[in-house]
Amino acid sequence: MDILVIGSVAFDSVETPFGRGDDVLGGSATYFSTSASFFTGVQLVAVVGEDFPDEPRQFLTSRGVDLAGLQTRPGKTFRWKGRYGYDLNEAHTLETHLNVFETFHPELPDTYRQAKFVFLANIDPELQLEVLQQVEKPKLIACDTMNFWIDGKRDALIRTLGHVDILVINEAEVRQLADEANLVKASRAVLAMGPKTLVVKRGEYGVLVFTEHSIFSAPAYPLEEVFDPTGAGDTFAGGFMGYLAATNNLSDETIRKATVFGSVMASFTVEDFSLDRLRKLTWSEIEDRFRRFQTLTAFEGL
Amino acid sequence: MDILVIGSVAFDSVETPFGRGDDVLGGSATYFSTSASFFTGVQLVAVVGEDFPDEPRQFLTSRGVDLAGLQTRPGKTFRWKGRYGYDLNEAHTLETHLNVFETFHPELPDTYRQAKFVFLANIDPELQLEVLQQVEKPKLIACDTMNFWIDGKRDALIRTLGHVDILVINEAEVRQLADEANLVKASRAVLAMGPKTLVVKRGEYGVLVFTEHSIFSAPAYPLEEVFDPTGAGDTFAGGFMGYLAATNNLSDETIRKATVFGSVMASFTVEDFSLDRLRKLTWSEIEDRFRRFQTLTAFEGL
Repeated sequence: MDILVIGSVAFDSVETPFGRGDDVLGGSATYFSTSASFFTGVQLVAVVGEDFPDEPRQFLTSRGVDLAGLQTRPGKTFRWKGRYGYDLNEAHTLETHLNVFETFHPELPDTYRQAKFVFLANIDPELQLEVLQQVEKPKLIACDTMNFWIDGKRDALIRTLGHVDILVINEAEVRQLADEANLVKASRAVLAMGPKTLVVKRGEYGVLVFTEHSIFSAPAYPLEEVFDPTGAGDTFAGGFMGYLAATNNLSDETIRKATVFGSVMASFTVEDFSLDRLRKLTWSEIEDRFRRFQTLTAFEGL
Repeated sequence: MDILVIGSVAFDSVETPFGRGDDVLGGSATYFSTSASFFTGVQLVAVVGEDFPDEPRQFLTSRGVDLAGLQTRPGKTFRWKGRYGYDLNEAHTLETHLNVFETFHPELPDTYRQAKFVFLANIDPELQLEVLQQVEKPKLIACDTMNFWIDGKRDALIRTLGHVDILVINEAEVRQLADEANLVKASRAVLAMGPKTLVVKRGEYGVLVFTEHSIFSAPAYPLEEVFDPTGAGDTFAGGFMGYLAATNNLSDETIRKATVFGSVMASFTVEDFSLDRLRKLTWSEIEDRFRRFQTLTAFEGL
């Protein structure tokens, strides 16, 4: 099954203690699509400006990403500038230029409307709803969001969550959304808002997956070299959704394995700037790291 | 095999968002011994003042803890006063009164000198060395320390580490000790100081265990009610060392299982103030939670 994703395609300027990248390819939909493309086909919905070059289009197309839903509008492509300190857990935004994203309204090509797997990356929850209204009979809807929307568009976000099967957000955002300090209680409260599954991203500490009757904990891969955490969350979501769509299975077991595949993909993205590591990545490297996750977490039972 | 532990026996006054305890039983050796006592016998080395009552002595004795090495000196027992905020990850120390601990020098009873498993809880590294000089042929030496000693008694600590097989410290302390931000690199640097195994405690994010050729990741148990994190680290160490001593086995597989037992024990301690949860704990509850750790982390392989 293909996945429909809506999100941003952007140019990022990123500084970390280990180097910098200026106007490099970024955006939530870009990271998500590239990651998911190792598992299944992707239909991308986003907007870029007239300054958006051919190379990234060719790259995404070569990865099996359908760009029929990528609008090109007069003006400039979305740009983000940020900096990370040594802890690498938190991005400090220096500049955000929405540019063509400011007036963006998603219009799904006819070929996208039958999509069964939908990922609503971190954008205005009103745009997320606009997309859902155009998809005819989705089987699985997952979404991401952030503190900015939890704070500023809470009502629209709650409406979106009513349609969502899987919510993928950061730990601090779970607490903020539920207004509850204890993560387990907060997660139960968020599940009561609609999603049947909540995937809590904890950066270098890994991921917790809450369902009604189960909790699954996956570590992040301990890396000696982390160059740039940008896109790690979207890359995680791409691997996670990619595996679910490829297997077309939503069992608890499959969701757990999808979580590990998501963690595997994220562990590669942070090893280099922009999508540079994903561009070179091979399937055998993915399988090798999946096995390392098995070794990392294995212990004998009672 | 019994375990010899040196550390503090104290009275704690603790405030958390969920309540408070005044002058309740605490101290690293107390938490460690009680936790380890579910697995094996314990020989305790510590000092208390003349104000130390019978009840905790009877409690520890009833748990199979040998108090021949517990000195009683003129003066008052060590007292610590601290507060936790909602995040519960960091204790804010309000008062520390060393009292009889200030002039303490450990003297091992003859019956302790044959100890094979030794745990040096978080005390002055010079006192840790004094204990090691009195133990004849230990099989396994583990130790804890803290930022205060890394900062103030670095040379003595490095000497102690030269004798230590397993170091059990917090994530921030690993980085501080190695002067390196990346945890994997920092851990390799700490292993080069002597210990063959490094157990990195990450609070609610669990534990990472580094050996020369392997990394093991264990989550913390996601709890709906955390009342008081005091003693969690020492309780972890008690379960960890208790299982190693009980099996008298130091294989990688056993160290992994010991890590999970340590995490199980710590998950109980934080459910109530002081040692109140451990006082009521049963072996079948420990086994049940161990199995929950298996469920929490299980996923299908490739």
